[in-house]
Amino acid sequence: MQSAGLRVNGLRLRESLEAMARIGATALGGMHRLALSDEDRQARDLLVSWLKELGLQVTVDQMGNIFGKKAGMREELPPVLMGSHLDTQPFGGRFDGVLGVMGALEVLRTLSERGIQTNRALILCNWTNEEGSRFSPAVMGSGVWAGKLELEEVYGRKDLRGLSVKEELRRIGYLGETLCLAFPVHAYYELHVEQGPVLERVGVPIGVPRGIVCIHWYRVLIQGESNQVGPTPMEGRHDALCAASEMILHVERVAKETGGRLVATVGRIENHPDSPNIIPGRVQFTVDIRSWEDQLALEAWEDMEMGFRETASRRGCLVQTEVVWRVDHVEFDPRLAQGVREKAQELGYKTHDMLSGAGHDASYMAMVAPTAMIFVPSIGGRSHVEAENTSWEDCEAGANVLLHCALASSQEGEK
Amino acid sequence: MQSAGLRVNGLRLRESLEAMARIGATALGGMHRLALSDEDRQARDLLVSWLKELGLQVTVDQMGNIFGKKAGMREELPPVLMGSHLDTQPFGGRFDGVLGVMGALEVLRTLSERGIQTNRALILCNWTNEEGSRFSPAVMGSGVWAGKLELEEVYGRKDLRGLSVKEELRRIGYLGETLCLAFPVHAYYELHVEQGPVLERVGVPIGVPRGIVCIHWYRVLIQGESNQVGPTPMEGRHDALCAASEMILHVERVAKETGGRLVATVGRIENHPDSPNIIPGRVQFTVDIRSWEDQLALEAWEDMEMGFRETASRRGCLVQTEVVWRVDHVEFDPRLAQGVREKAQELGYKTHDMLSGAGHDASYMAMVAPTAMIFVPSIGGRSHVEAENTSWEDCEAGANVLLHCALASSQEGEK
Repeated sequence: MQSAGLRVNGLRLRESLEAMARIGATALGGMHRLALSDEDRQARDLLVSWLKELGLQVTVDQMGNIFGKKAGMREELPPVLMGSHLDTQPFGGRFDGVLGVMGALEVLRTLSERGIQTNRALILCNWTNEEGSRFSPAVMGSGVWAGKLELEEVYGRKDLRGLSVKEELRRIGYLGETLCLAFPVHAYYELHVEQGPVLERVGVPIGVPRGIVCIHWYRVLIQGESNQVGPTPMEGRHDALCAASEMILHVERVAKETGGRLVATVGRIENHPDSPNIIPGRVQFTVDIRSWEDQLALEAWEDMEMGFRETASRRGCLVQTEVVWRVDHVEFDPRLAQGVREKAQELGYKTHDMLSGAGHDASYMAMVAPTAMIFVPSIGGRSHVEAENTSWEDCEAGANVLLHCALASSQEGEK
Repeated sequence: MQSAGLRVNGLRLRESLEAMARIGATALGGMHRLALSDEDRQARDLLVSWLKELGLQVTVDQMGNIFGKKAGMREELPPVLMGSHLDTQPFGGRFDGVLGVMGALEVLRTLSERGIQTNRALILCNWTNEEGSRFSPAVMGSGVWAGKLELEEVYGRKDLRGLSVKEELRRIGYLGETLCLAFPVHAYYELHVEQGPVLERVGVPIGVPRGIVCIHWYRVLIQGESNQVGPTPMEGRHDALCAASEMILHVERVAKETGGRLVATVGRIENHPDSPNIIPGRVQFTVDIRSWEDQLALEAWEDMEMGFRETASRRGCLVQTEVVWRVDHVEFDPRLAQGVREKAQELGYKTHDMLSGAGHDASYMAMVAPTAMIFVPSIGGRSHVEAENTSWEDCEAGANVLLHCALASSQEGEK
């Protein structure tokens, strides 16, 4: 096989990342390219033009997922997929998602210019609405494709202006006709920035996630009693924000005491009536719990709920909790993960075994196909913020690992 | 003097309160009549029509303050003023402010139908924008009148839609030409609901406030570090909302430990980026401290700031604080307060000496004229909420006390 010395073109990869980063750029160097927005359309159009330049067969399915296929010599064998997403968080970063799509593009460009044929087809995928910031839930396109979300149900999901997923897919020209339905896949690879501090701390360019932690979302609603601040003595107040503050610290404490790398976060809070001179009467907040061990996450939630009830009862408030979303942890394919480790080492990159704390399109893909991810370091561990950054060198390293993993899988025969 | 058996018409008072409560009524029985809104205009128009029915001389000053004057026999003597405000909090109550205006109207109607002449003129005042919910600062109309706020400065204050005080005064037809400037006043009386639980607890219909506590407003800004929740371990987080939660509980603790009826409240909080899966990176909240002893309030703030700094430094966050507004406590005129006590007792009502924990137009009036307030009980101590309520009987009792106090002051000669 002629591929041992094969490398991606790091400069070209950087240029395509930079071109994408101009579409929806923010003043502070970040990205604001929400799913199915005009910016998302521009990014998709650019991707499609690049796929067509390579002579790939482009299809768009009913969810707007984009597939760019480089045919294999044995079309009867299930293909190898590589992908991620082009949408971003509001005021998010330039690498989350887009690196996986541009990395896959760079792999296809490299194979194409060397005239390398593979047994199996290689398909680049751009999944619709991974972030879920504009339309809930997140990880939408791959979720429907994998049969874990209902097409008609997500079509009806609306943004804050009342526009639906289906209307917006049609408006931006990406309401495709191909069925959004999983077909047999030999291997799925997703290159992604780590979005955490681990790789930078251990000083290693390639992370090999064993899988993705469980993600449990809850809503907590506290009912206290609002009142004019001045004439209401401290004794006898039922201040919902003071109660919420205790509960937020309780969430943090339970997470720290549980250990086992469990994390729990209160990310959103709503306070009513939210006026400087009125005692808060109603507060609502979210809790996000993640753990490799689903059971540990469930037990932590029980501990938290017990603390919430204790606080509420002591303060004369009412508390209600609600399960919003629960996705169990998912394990990647051990054989593919071992391949990532070996290919990286052959290329001279150190690797580090880890877990993914963030959800990805690979979460749903792992339920229907052998799946692995390739992580590269996030500078300062920052992500979902405008300061998100990864060195061009690490982007290139990740793309080289993707190249050799995808190439090896695509040359495999039946199994 | 023919006035010993004189009483207001409780039913007529109730009817005028009910008529006002229909202008800007909310579905849950409260009021939403923000300063200088269309609803405020309607309420003003109704008041002016009633004043004119009584044959009073109506003037509107540059701040939209409305004065309805019943002439005295000795026009050279400074008049007696009675008033409050018709604007309400967003989703506020039916009594805060409006009782003081309708009570004064009922006094004038009672004197008028009995043909009672007074030495001094009696003037009803409706002060513009006491609540400050739409245009900051609060207590605006009486503040400018008393020379404590600058007319041109407050003219430029804008609401969230960018409309200014002056534009809105002009639009609703209440940009008057009379100078907004204090003239000599013999006595100012303001009838108001207590907005706290004290009178209900002691079972007394008439409260006699010694004065108004100081009101200190602060803003606290915490800078932490936002990040994706999943991949960021609990250790090493700089969660601005967890830091804020500690600080909010610290505010509550310092207030409770300080005692001396000092109250402190965090009423408003803003969290950034406020997304369920992003660690909060920036939080801002308000602190409202009130006390009869200004020095105690200043010392409590020092304690709070010390706690804020300790929390911020332990959590690797930055904290900044800002003084937004400080009004010292104000003492009412002891002679007028004694008059309230005596008139109430003559009428057969028990009285209770207390402090006002809320700011009022009387705060500024007390700086330029002998001032007293008359409090009536708030059911359940609730105020600034739709459930705000006071019994019709207590409203009538308060108006009777106002009648006899204002009448006595208006009959006084030179002093």
